[in-house]
Amino acid sequence: MSATSAVPPKTMRWNGDTSGWLTMIDQTLLPVEFKEIDCRTVEQVWEAIKKLRVRGAPAIGCAAAYGVVIGLQTLPKTADRKTFDARLKEVTGYLAESRPTAVNLFWALDRLNATAARFAQLSPQEMHARLLEEAKAIETEDREMCAAIGRHGAALLADGMGVLTHCNAGGLATAGDGTALAVMFAAAAEGKQIQVYADETRPLLQGARLTTWELQQRGVPVTLICDNMAGWVMKEKRVQAVITGADRIAANGDSANKIGTYSVALLAKAHGIPFYVAAPSSTFDLTLKSGEDIPIEQRAAEEITNGFGRATAPEGTQVYNPAFDVAPAELITAIITEKGVIRPVTEANVRKMVEG
Amino acid sequence: MSATSAVPPKTMRWNGDTSGWLTMIDQTLLPVEFKEIDCRTVEQVWEAIKKLRVRGAPAIGCAAAYGVVIGLQTLPKTADRKTFDARLKEVTGYLAESRPTAVNLFWALDRLNATAARFAQLSPQEMHARLLEEAKAIETEDREMCAAIGRHGAALLADGMGVLTHCNAGGLATAGDGTALAVMFAAAAEGKQIQVYADETRPLLQGARLTTWELQQRGVPVTLICDNMAGWVMKEKRVQAVITGADRIAANGDSANKIGTYSVALLAKAHGIPFYVAAPSSTFDLTLKSGEDIPIEQRAAEEITNGFGRATAPEGTQVYNPAFDVAPAELITAIITEKGVIRPVTEANVRKMVEG
Repeated sequence: MSATSAVPPKTMRWNGDTSGWLTMIDQTLLPVEFKEIDCRTVEQVWEAIKKLRVRGAPAIGCAAAYGVVIGLQTLPKTADRKTFDARLKEVTGYLAESRPTAVNLFWALDRLNATAARFAQLSPQEMHARLLEEAKAIETEDREMCAAIGRHGAALLADGMGVLTHCNAGGLATAGDGTALAVMFAAAAEGKQIQVYADETRPLLQGARLTTWELQQRGVPVTLICDNMAGWVMKEKRVQAVITGADRIAANGDSANKIGTYSVALLAKAHGIPFYVAAPSSTFDLTLKSGEDIPIEQRAAEEITNGFGRATAPEGTQVYNPAFDVAPAELITAIITEKGVIRPVTEANVRKMVEG
Repeated sequence: MSATSAVPPKTMRWNGDTSGWLTMIDQTLLPVEFKEIDCRTVEQVWEAIKKLRVRGAPAIGCAAAYGVVIGLQTLPKTADRKTFDARLKEVTGYLAESRPTAVNLFWALDRLNATAARFAQLSPQEMHARLLEEAKAIETEDREMCAAIGRHGAALLADGMGVLTHCNAGGLATAGDGTALAVMFAAAAEGKQIQVYADETRPLLQGARLTTWELQQRGVPVTLICDNMAGWVMKEKRVQAVITGADRIAANGDSANKIGTYSVALLAKAHGIPFYVAAPSSTFDLTLKSGEDIPIEQRAAEEITNGFGRATAPEGTQVYNPAFDVAPAELITAIITEKGVIRPVTEANVRKMVEG
């Protein structure tokens, strides 16, 4: 597989000024179809997040920030600051209801609310422009964070390694190069030959659909496996490191990520393989003591029973479909952030890195 | 879910005398469509095994035995015993090429060859009838073995338990009630309330399609999960026992079974949950010292990338698709056979039970 595109398409981009719109790749259609969607209402942004047209904790944060800017467009030009602030509260509250687990969503919305509170003297028009700037800053910073995560993480991978990843923590999950995949891209850019094993990641197959696609676009060798093969490829010594992203990390380092990550972490531990989490500091939620406090989104049964456009289980089958699970800190060898590598993963080390 | 059928449909049935044919449920169509296929040539039987229309180690053995009887129908009535024996060798050799891992296939073919060798004085017509008898005996014994496995295993399950299983080791995998599922059916028949968690079992979804269907038919509560959720439901203490079938068991107890079983066994161990294998003695291959000697079937990439009539990965994606893996004896709490329970799983105990 050779690289088919040096510059991969952007996960999202803003068009125009405060009256503009957000264009995003519809990730539910990949890899069969590459299609971009234009979101011109906050409801469209909410739907895109809810339906996973945009997904990945950092990307959700960026999309939500732009969603706020779009939501404020419904205000009449004559609106005063009080009306503006009420609408801002309404829009951020609405977007916060789209998905519960990835903390970057709340982090981005909080950041916009805090910006508005800090500049109470600005007119609604000025404030709208200021919030667009803030959304753009979030996107730019996310891109920089991805690059920094790649730099810090690449040192952990050696030439010739097999590297397993779960779900998609790539460019599509962020505004930049990704988190877990940024590490692989950076290692490859340093000339290290790595072989990625991508879990397909049921039920929504982000690994099969998105991770393979991104790695192929960038010319990094990737082999697709079913989730239940992860333990066996470790046993067969095909894998020397595991790297995943995260959707929310508690103060003690417990990391919520796509369902299946907990099993992968445990299997890696049993095989003596390092298990790394790659995530920007916006993914940490230091208000939570441990992973037990992280809310786990439950999703529809149909994702499992009708996931491939055809029924794969008898009608009415009882289903359990948590979208995330939590890898406890003791299973995590290190957390790779844009500020550096947290190792060992302890509350003290987490706080030092994230707050420092 | 209440029982919709007291007597579940039979996985396979023979019609007529030595000129008869084999009718089997086409398991690739379940649960969307219940359709039976008639196999009237040995090539049809081979294709049904290869394409998993019939699957499950014991069921493959039974189907292959009947396949031999069908293959012998092409002999002219005037054929002598030498011609008969040559065709027998040809047919058994051909069927042995259908799938490599489940030893019951070879066990059944060997048994028919041994029968023919033992009765060298019989005419071709007499021998043909004798082999049909032998095939029927294999089927009958398989049904009895399933019942005995159920009896021996039910004692291991307590009222109120959550029981996880992987793939389908039910009636559809055998001529009777199954192996792993026979244990659950027997426990339920004893009045124990159990809650089954069924791994969907990628890539071919035998858990989603077949195990849920069978349990629903018999009124046993079942919850479907994706394979990558198995560790998490253990962590959440929803599961107190794991039972799977096996396709080949080496002399030391190492057990090959559907890909993913190794991971499930390791995850069970990490959570202190007993991991049981249920299999008849025809699944043991005492000529193999350990699981390292068990051949692992590799299957087509399309099962993963195009499993359900639609592409779920970019075209040309590199895939690794082993159909089986091996749970080493040290991860297996006990093996439930028709002769009794092997516990702890050691070569001495295996030999004592299987050869005794």
